[in-house]
Amino acid sequence: MVGTIEQKLASLGITLHTPRSPVANYVPFVRTGNLLTVSGQVCYAPDGTLIAKGKLGAGLTLEQGAAAARGCAINLLAQLKVATGDLDRVMRVVRLGGFINSAPDFLDGPKVMNGASDLMVDVFGDKGRHARTTVGVASLPSDAAVEVDGMFEII
Amino acid sequence: MVGTIEQKLASLGITLHTPRSPVANYVPFVRTGNLLTVSGQVCYAPDGTLIAKGKLGAGLTLEQGAAAARGCAINLLAQLKVATGDLDRVMRVVRLGGFINSAPDFLDGPKVMNGASDLMVDVFGDKGRHARTTVGVASLPSDAAVEVDGMFEII
Amino acid sequence: MVGTIEQKLASLGITLHTPRSPVANYVPFVRTGNLLTVSGQVCYAPDGTLIAKGKLGAGLTLEQGAAAARGCAINLLAQLKVATGDLDRVMRVVRLGGFINSAPDFLDGPKVMNGASDLMVDVFGDKGRHARTTVGVASLPSDAAVEVDGMFEII
Repeated sequence: MVGTIEQKLASLGITLHTPRSPVANYVPFVRTGNLLTVSGQVCYAPDGTLIAKGKLGAGLTLEQGAAAARGCAINLLAQLKVATGDLDRVMRVVRLGGFINSAPDFLDGPKVMNGASDLMVDVFGDKGRHARTTVGVASLPSDAAVEVDGMFEII
Repeated sequence: MVGTIEQKLASLGITLHTPRSPVANYVPFVRTGNLLTVSGQVCYAPDGTLIAKGKLGAGLTLEQGAAAARGCAINLLAQLKVATGDLDRVMRVVRLGGFINSAPDFLDGPKVMNGASDLMVDVFGDKGRHARTTVGVASLPSDAAVEVDGMFEII
Repeated sequence: MVGTIEQKLASLGITLHTPRSPVANYVPFVRTGNLLTVSGQVCYAPDGTLIAKGKLGAGLTLEQGAAAARGCAINLLAQLKVATGDLDRVMRVVRLGGFINSAPDFLDGPKVMNGASDLMVDVFGDKGRHARTTVGVASLPSDAAVEVDGMFEII
């Protein structure tokens, strides 16, 4: 039996790959009560390359940034799948934190972050509507264009 | 009947306007259990203009920054009012996250963020004393000087 | 009676000093239910000097950065000790947020942040394995090299 959310993912043409493990002394997610806190996911594609590399406002387009944010969200889903076994156990996307690798004069972080937010609502419907904070940061690991972390309510 | 906290707001001369809705696929707040997570609020005044625009350490004064942070806190209160219906249901301001639009050599983020922290304590008293993290970021949406998000315990 | 975790700290040669209080209208930590949210800790040594000052990628080495992150983690432990009275009451390090004072081209934030993550696992073992988000920020209070905040499950 494939759950409702995973059928939705399939209909969107999204395959969740087994996420890589962190290479340091931290873990991809921690559950406490019904809250699942997921580590910051940078915009890696399944093949290990970055979907977009560098800074918004210094070479990357909004479209590239939004695609990167969407990729971060897919990586969050892959972690959620490992954490829950079944994405139907996700009751709510509580919060996304969006960190946009930004030149000092780049002001459109929210448009970039919409790539992540839209995916969550496409996948989870109203349960995907989340609180969100978007900021432009000076640098990100591996020069990734976007990093997104998340908090989820699960059963 | 006007609640205690709203009487306090009135005594401070603060009117909470109906907050604007996010223009994307996210929501202003999410409740999970007794925790309310509120999206990052930038320093918009009720008339839709920014209270302060640009970077601390590059033109803006500490006073302008602190006024902007205070404005972010008022916007958090406006969201709290919608979420709770009655601000007396706020049991604790748990955490504020302060993001200061900063030139690389601006070191006084905490003094800016005090504009938000002081307001919470002025309004809620001891219940307003919160954990806080303040950092200087490379850019913020619409070139706002300050963005603040929050976590609250409510009943 | 000294608890297990405090014996572990002693074996690591770590002494927890009484943390300084915030000098503004916020508090070092807030408990809500079993969750303890701890304010951002910058890399102060017990003598009040910064363990590392300035930006990674602009003068500081990875080793200096990691030592600073470790110092932030020790400051989190000192706050945890005050909050719990006994570090054996820490059930889980849920999340660390790592903010690295970074030049725009500094890409090794995770290696810096490992200084904090490694300490948590050295001290708490598997209970110390946490979710983590690491970003490079434009500036930090007092020009500290690193700031780390945390969320903990306690009993």
